[in-house]
Amino acid sequence: MSEIGIGLFGLGTVGTGVVKILQENAEQIAKRTGTKMVVKHAVVHNVNKTRSGIINTFPITDNPKDILENDSIEIVVEVMGSIDAARDIIKRALNAKKHVVTANKDLIAIHGQELVRIAHDNGVDLYYEAAVAGGIPILRTLTSSFTADEISRVAGIINGTSNFILTQMAVNHLSYAQALQLAQDKGFAEADPTNDVEGFDAAYKLIILSNFAFGVQPVLGDVNIKGISDLTDTDIQDAHQLGFAIKLLGVAERVDNAISIEVAPHLVPLDHPLATVHNENNAVLVNGESVGEIILYGPGAGELPTANSVLSDLTNVATDLALNTSGRPFNSFNQDLPLAKPSQRKARRFIVIEVKDTPGAMYSVTGIFASAQISFTDLKQSPAVNGIARLIAITHPASDAQLNVIKTTLKNADGINLRSEYKIFS
Amino acid sequence: MSEIGIGLFGLGTVGTGVVKILQENAEQIAKRTGTKMVVKHAVVHNVNKTRSGIINTFPITDNPKDILENDSIEIVVEVMGSIDAARDIIKRALNAKKHVVTANKDLIAIHGQELVRIAHDNGVDLYYEAAVAGGIPILRTLTSSFTADEISRVAGIINGTSNFILTQMAVNHLSYAQALQLAQDKGFAEADPTNDVEGFDAAYKLIILSNFAFGVQPVLGDVNIKGISDLTDTDIQDAHQLGFAIKLLGVAERVDNAISIEVAPHLVPLDHPLATVHNENNAVLVNGESVGEIILYGPGAGELPTANSVLSDLTNVATDLALNTSGRPFNSFNQDLPLAKPSQRKARRFIVIEVKDTPGAMYSVTGIFASAQISFTDLKQSPAVNGIARLIAITHPASDAQLNVIKTTLKNADGINLRSEYKIFS
Repeated sequence: MSEIGIGLFGLGTVGTGVVKILQENAEQIAKRTGTKMVVKHAVVHNVNKTRSGIINTFPITDNPKDILENDSIEIVVEVMGSIDAARDIIKRALNAKKHVVTANKDLIAIHGQELVRIAHDNGVDLYYEAAVAGGIPILRTLTSSFTADEISRVAGIINGTSNFILTQMAVNHLSYAQALQLAQDKGFAEADPTNDVEGFDAAYKLIILSNFAFGVQPVLGDVNIKGISDLTDTDIQDAHQLGFAIKLLGVAERVDNAISIEVAPHLVPLDHPLATVHNENNAVLVNGESVGEIILYGPGAGELPTANSVLSDLTNVATDLALNTSGRPFNSFNQDLPLAKPSQRKARRFIVIEVKDTPGAMYSVTGIFASAQISFTDLKQSPAVNGIARLIAITHPASDAQLNVIKTTLKNADGINLRSEYKIFS
Repeated sequence: MSEIGIGLFGLGTVGTGVVKILQENAEQIAKRTGTKMVVKHAVVHNVNKTRSGIINTFPITDNPKDILENDSIEIVVEVMGSIDAARDIIKRALNAKKHVVTANKDLIAIHGQELVRIAHDNGVDLYYEAAVAGGIPILRTLTSSFTADEISRVAGIINGTSNFILTQMAVNHLSYAQALQLAQDKGFAEADPTNDVEGFDAAYKLIILSNFAFGVQPVLGDVNIKGISDLTDTDIQDAHQLGFAIKLLGVAERVDNAISIEVAPHLVPLDHPLATVHNENNAVLVNGESVGEIILYGPGAGELPTANSVLSDLTNVATDLALNTSGRPFNSFNQDLPLAKPSQRKARRFIVIEVKDTPGAMYSVTGIFASAQISFTDLKQSPAVNGIARLIAITHPASDAQLNVIKTTLKNADGINLRSEYKIFS
């Protein structure tokens, strides 16, 4: 049986998981792929750190050359994180004609095109299934099962940290601050949670999903991003009363012949499968003209689920090696689509407005919406508390451009405050 | 650009869908696969039938030789249904060194091994993604993303007809007969619904799922099958009150070093994603040691979703042709596992017992369970109606062997009737 040597950059959570699966499932992997995959070397930042849970059958050093110039290593697994250092390592590995598997979403979202080109020039594989939605095999599914379909939308819960926080707020009635603290205690959120709760992590993943689903190559600035840190438990309760959960969704969709890419909290009907995606789990929904609606659900992070996605990349590299078919791009879909304009980005809306409880206040509010051509399907006014009434409305489809008119008008309106505004996902 | 000729056996729902997608998405398919796929001929049973919705750019005849002996045809798509005739056609196609794509689950479940061997001997592809769960790309996912993982369970809602009936009973409070009638009116159920409602259709799909997930080759007699035709709206209401939906599930799971394969109505907790799979939709859940729990959700049938799965097979054949890698089996996982014994097949149970409302009746019932070593976690007695009280119980995990003891005892017990008994899925 042929042996494939693997070099690991990084022995953190995912790296350790990769070693564990390779060691524990060695026999099955050999049986099913016809090759023996062996970790030959790991390069880490701090060689003195204690590492538990893995049988240490390979040298661990801090010199990249120990892998990059090691002829017994055919595949480099990059799970060290960071952007610049990882980019440098991956470029050197590809140029040394080593196949590369990475879980680095930020890197692929920003420098993917450059790395794909270098892999192609060197005739080697570059796979990154683990970069999006942890254990969910969404990228390989998009590239192998929907090639003949026209995808109209890819959307989902692709940040486990924020979904954990929203679940705790909705189910256990924690405040945002309490839920964030719990996420941090459980290791789901970092000390500085910005990347997760402000939507940047989801935006990077959505960029990669857009590559595969639409063949486009957006940059971070092309994504409309709104996080969950402003969200209150009142919003969650109001939404729930109307039959919706609030979820942070990444949504990339075709609008006419353009593409809209957005990360924002959305209202999801309680009987929609996305509403039952709880805690740190992820789910990605794909709408195709032929297939209709498909959802892939699973763990969005974690040592072994993410490592399993790395392993699926490794077994695919092994198959390519056995068949002599290395060097094909992971995603071969490329096309140019313009970004959708605010006037094209339409959705039903959930809107909460606070008004001073004075005669004519509600008349002013409805007048502002009427002049922006936005009409309601549901409208609910709560009794005034401290002289402030709450108006909760669900609208017919309205565009971002129309909402911008409302926002501008309300900024100058006395005694009327736009408290919350979310799109409704359907 | 190279052209690939396709011959179609069958122009029913799925066949028509295949032609539509090939015609409407021709440009995209050519761009993404680098090949032009063209239907060259269709063979049907009745050439005089009117066919709408497709542009007829190819001859339609009733002579199989028109495809099988046509040198311009490289891929045969079998969507004519039936077992014996389809088996004959596919064997002849494979032996004529034509690649075959089929959606025929019964055929693959029964004669899959034989056909796989013939395909291998002829160095051609045999793909059948559409045979299981319509538009959901579960087979390709199992074979390409979980090769390195040890799967412990594959389960799901894999019969759309029965799920439609159960949904209508639960949500719209129809009786079983009314729900079946509605399914027939909508074209989801056939005039003779046996195959769907008695679990045979799901059993065939579960056999194929077991091939891919566990490498085993069960026959229909290895599957424990119970359908939904005995199920009453009272069962559904009782289950709902305790926080469960009732779903017809196919469940194949490893138990120690054996395999248990079962199709039966199960109770699913209302907050479990499977409980939100409504009407004709399907969902397949995979538990892997590394990946944890993954669910793929989508349309389980329908013209275009199922046709999209055929198309994903076609584009994979095209890729194999371009790379000169044809002839690899769709599923390469093979191993022998014994069937689990009734004593190994354990689950929590939902049990409904009717007892004559006499002193000591409940004492007898609880005594019977105690002597079978089955204990309860929840127990609820309803007030007697016409002298008959209902006892609804949820048990700790109990084996099929223990339940068989109960059933035998109750058969001989006076005034005690086991009304319903379902496993609880978790």
